[in-house]
Amino acid sequence: MENRGKRGRYIVIKKRTDLAAEARELWRESAGETTELSGVEARTSSESGFAVETVKILDERGEAALGKPKGTYISIDLDPLMKREEGAFARAAAVVADKLRGLLKLKEGESVLVCGLGNSAITPDNIGPGAVKNTLATRHLVAAMPEDFAAFRPVAVLEAGVLGTTGVESAEIVRAVAEKVAPAAVIAVDALASRRMARICRTLQISDTGIVPGSGVGNARSELSENTLGVPVISVGVPTVVDAGTLAADLMEQAGIGESSSADFAQFGGSMVVTPREIDSQVDECARLIGYGINMALHELTVEDIAMLV
Amino acid sequence: MENRGKRGRYIVIKKRTDLAAEARELWRESAGETTELSGVEARTSSESGFAVETVKILDERGEAALGKPKGTYISIDLDPLMKREEGAFARAAAVVADKLRGLLKLKEGESVLVCGLGNSAITPDNIGPGAVKNTLATRHLVAAMPEDFAAFRPVAVLEAGVLGTTGVESAEIVRAVAEKVAPAAVIAVDALASRRMARICRTLQISDTGIVPGSGVGNARSELSENTLGVPVISVGVPTVVDAGTLAADLMEQAGIGESSSADFAQFGGSMVVTPREIDSQVDECARLIGYGINMALHELTVEDIAMLV
Amino acid sequence: MENRGKRGRYIVIKKRTDLAAEARELWRESAGETTELSGVEARTSSESGFAVETVKILDERGEAALGKPKGTYISIDLDPLMKREEGAFARAAAVVADKLRGLLKLKEGESVLVCGLGNSAITPDNIGPGAVKNTLATRHLVAAMPEDFAAFRPVAVLEAGVLGTTGVESAEIVRAVAEKVAPAAVIAVDALASRRMARICRTLQISDTGIVPGSGVGNARSELSENTLGVPVISVGVPTVVDAGTLAADLMEQAGIGESSSADFAQFGGSMVVTPREIDSQVDECARLIGYGINMALHELTVEDIAMLV
Amino acid sequence: MENRGKRGRYIVIKKRTDLAAEARELWRESAGETTELSGVEARTSSESGFAVETVKILDERGEAALGKPKGTYISIDLDPLMKREEGAFARAAAVVADKLRGLLKLKEGESVLVCGLGNSAITPDNIGPGAVKNTLATRHLVAAMPEDFAAFRPVAVLEAGVLGTTGVESAEIVRAVAEKVAPAAVIAVDALASRRMARICRTLQISDTGIVPGSGVGNARSELSENTLGVPVISVGVPTVVDAGTLAADLMEQAGIGESSSADFAQFGGSMVVTPREIDSQVDECARLIGYGINMALHELTVEDIAMLV
Repeated sequence: MENRGKRGRYIVIKKRTDLAAEARELWRESAGETTELSGVEARTSSESGFAVETVKILDERGEAALGKPKGTYISIDLDPLMKREEGAFARAAAVVADKLRGLLKLKEGESVLVCGLGNSAITPDNIGPGAVKNTLATRHLVAAMPEDFAAFRPVAVLEAGVLGTTGVESAEIVRAVAEKVAPAAVIAVDALASRRMARICRTLQISDTGIVPGSGVGNARSELSENTLGVPVISVGVPTVVDAGTLAADLMEQAGIGESSSADFAQFGGSMVVTPREIDSQVDECARLIGYGINMALHELTVEDIAMLV
Repeated sequence: MENRGKRGRYIVIKKRTDLAAEARELWRESAGETTELSGVEARTSSESGFAVETVKILDERGEAALGKPKGTYISIDLDPLMKREEGAFARAAAVVADKLRGLLKLKEGESVLVCGLGNSAITPDNIGPGAVKNTLATRHLVAAMPEDFAAFRPVAVLEAGVLGTTGVESAEIVRAVAEKVAPAAVIAVDALASRRMARICRTLQISDTGIVPGSGVGNARSELSENTLGVPVISVGVPTVVDAGTLAADLMEQAGIGESSSADFAQFGGSMVVTPREIDSQVDECARLIGYGINMALHELTVEDIAMLV
Repeated sequence: MENRGKRGRYIVIKKRTDLAAEARELWRESAGETTELSGVEARTSSESGFAVETVKILDERGEAALGKPKGTYISIDLDPLMKREEGAFARAAAVVADKLRGLLKLKEGESVLVCGLGNSAITPDNIGPGAVKNTLATRHLVAAMPEDFAAFRPVAVLEAGVLGTTGVESAEIVRAVAEKVAPAAVIAVDALASRRMARICRTLQISDTGIVPGSGVGNARSELSENTLGVPVISVGVPTVVDAGTLAADLMEQAGIGESSSADFAQFGGSMVVTPREIDSQVDECARLIGYGINMALHELTVEDIAMLV
Repeated sequence: MENRGKRGRYIVIKKRTDLAAEARELWRESAGETTELSGVEARTSSESGFAVETVKILDERGEAALGKPKGTYISIDLDPLMKREEGAFARAAAVVADKLRGLLKLKEGESVLVCGLGNSAITPDNIGPGAVKNTLATRHLVAAMPEDFAAFRPVAVLEAGVLGTTGVESAEIVRAVAEKVAPAAVIAVDALASRRMARICRTLQISDTGIVPGSGVGNARSELSENTLGVPVISVGVPTVVDAGTLAADLMEQAGIGESSSADFAQFGGSMVVTPREIDSQVDECARLIGYGINMALHELTVEDIAMLV
């Protein structure tokens, strides 16, 4: 499972997770607290009651150590939301909006394409489709009634589907539509995979490195990034499952037992996941949060405004 | 509402309907049974127990008379299906498949893009989205495992969304994806509008003239046709509503009363529709029929095969 | 359709509508403005920006004239909500709650059974099922943790289903559960039928006379009232359709044409309805309003509190 | 976790599973293959290509050993269905119907109440609600048109809801309705819990001992059995999740490690489950199978007939 080998002069990690903060945590566990993690900067803060961790991967060493491309990864701990603290939804949406704005760096009037990735018929994969259902499309309104919608940015919204039901890579569909729409930036929303149960529906990650749809769950499709789309791609996601085989292997490893003990899991490889019993409502909540955060980042809107508009 | 005026030398119709067979019926009613309808050929047949009417618009005179472009329009009366006659679904799907194959004229192995138009969140507009949910995507399978899927044609499937939720014309999205996928033909599925209650969820129309999404319900978007896509576009649809204002005006006219009597309807113009009480289940049934018919037209599959695959 | 006959000494109405305010309007139209409507009191007011009409049927004469049992019928015009005026939802919910409290006359701690009637699989019939999905069940919480839930009234919530899918009259199911739960009052929510398009999803009626499920749409089932349940039954509903045949007949009558002209409609009798094109979202909105109004009537809760709890 | 203690003179098991076949397997693993399991009879067979295991608990010793009441427990291995073998659905439904008929022992014309337990808003808990949506209600038809429906048994169908959304124990609701409907037998459908991933959506259990809703997942509600309802109660269910904490503990135990190692799981106790990635479609399939099996057990119907009727 894990590999403490060397690549050049530095320790690298092979444990697969979509979350940079978790990759850093795993690296620390494997390398030991005293080893320095070069090429990576991290800091934590508290914003409107939410713990925020920002991991910056600065160079090749950081990329190799954490197994992710250079860039900024911001993770927001959703615990206050899931505990239903007073006003938590509005505060969380404001934090998401603030972080998105920071990475998007849009000028006034620049347009955005928001893409939901994932299969809406599979509950834990419904983060992307659910988020775009909560995202306001304004491109046509701004074009048709520019004065009435002067306060709005042109936003196009796409549910990109999945290969299994469309026969077309979702990245290919996003590229096709982006070419027509010519946005200044793309926001791509997808479910993520983590290795820790404590993260499921509890961590929201925003990054400026784009997204490789499905990469976290074993069926890598093609890349969505500035490389492939020609404009910045900001990704937003929440982990909704831990692969059951991975979890079992991790447990065995923690218990000091080799891989053979988890042979029973081989037959379920990739087909079984660990997920909250209340996954349906938690995915809905996270998807709504992302949609609202995007709307608030792109337009001057409050949570109440959006509730009236979507 | 209606206009018996002349355009050049022939009688034209302004009553708006998506159905060529109905347009012809309306023309007859307005022009009188003895007037000849030039430029239009029509014939009826019975296939597997279903009444089929084929209207061919041959030239400009036909186009002007019926208000539709040149081409072939085939309508299938779904009455036996709605009466739940034994085996009606399988027979209806076979008739749909047969008519589609006749218009598609595909060579072996040529690929197809199937597009569902309409808003899945509005029940009577869910014909297109519902049909594509019942359509098998095979393009990726044929590409990845050509030998295993030798019996299948490459098919891509797209739910094109609606302007109000995407901010992008659905025709623009179809064009973008068609450019990437490069199909030999496009099948476009949409809900239609008719003027006759007896047609609602009772007539399925297939034509080789493409589709203008939403044209039947007043919000014309841009065209999907060989002109705009560069490959043949076969349209499939079922009417699911009659506009309430139109129906009232038609009734008034039949009763020999002028337009003023229907002034009450003005305030509901376009916002009220006449629909079957059981619209939810009837739309589901029609959408499933279209999906199955498409699958059977494009691959060598039976209804039972498809039931296992979708 | 209509009958201006006499029953005893007073004019009666046979036009079927679930709305007392509309029945009064129809009576006035048929009897003429100068005739006195005995046994009925009506007054209008404006509350938080919503027009409210209260019709009290006082005696047998009123019952015969309006075709409804003695009691109080309050109708709230939802126009500001459907126009999305600022804060309209919260204000409307507060008006609904206020009117419900006035008719319920509950003592502190008395329990309530809230029943949703109608078929959730038929969009315009989904008012009752949709409302109960927005209603908080607290009976078990108050019983298990009386101190933590001291501020809540015990509320049980039942989706009673429909005869076609359960094989049991919904009234029979409500009675069975009411016997076990022994509430101090029952609130029954159902879709209503009106004769006027302008009322659809625009009028919310609350009455203290109970409900005959489905009576407005032709398939009368048995009664839900203090007579049959032994406790007060408050009904809440919104009309979602006008029967197409009825509408056509009304139009013909207005145009001074006899019944024969509407013979075309006979074949669609009861199967076709007039409904807003946006019926799905309007039914959702009305059902949510009723659920929120009920929660606010029964507990000390704000709209924001409820949004966090349902 | 486990207890190899003695109760009287025999070995008992405390590992919680809803499946008698699995309880027997767990007992064997803990007691060793050579120990005799008294009071329990088991046999396996193959029916229409499906492996069937019948466990009969004969007396108190069997009850204590397997932790379940006396009675017959039939489990059907759904593997051929999930592998989409040709004709598997129709064959599986016929096996379910056959086993149900064997336990129901109904006389001609005797009526049945079919109850779906569980929360339809939680995907893995949607077995019961999904099954009843596929079950034909005929009680009202047989009553209204006895001659037309002479071939049908009167069947009432109830979705009993869950305590959290109704405020009333589902068993209490079933009892209330059963008293009104007075059926000769009750069939109760619910999601089950197992301890083995290999069983999830792969084993369907039918028993004549009734059901304790939710017992398998930790929130025991009250009993549904001949004791409480006065008529035989046949239960049908499919396991859809394994509790993640239980699974981890089982793994640790297999690896020879004590409970302390699984302390990490304590915080997720009951809130995390292991489930197939494709849980949505697998639950739908199993629920449909149960509904069809019930219809075929109660009436003379084929799979094709039912497809036309539901």
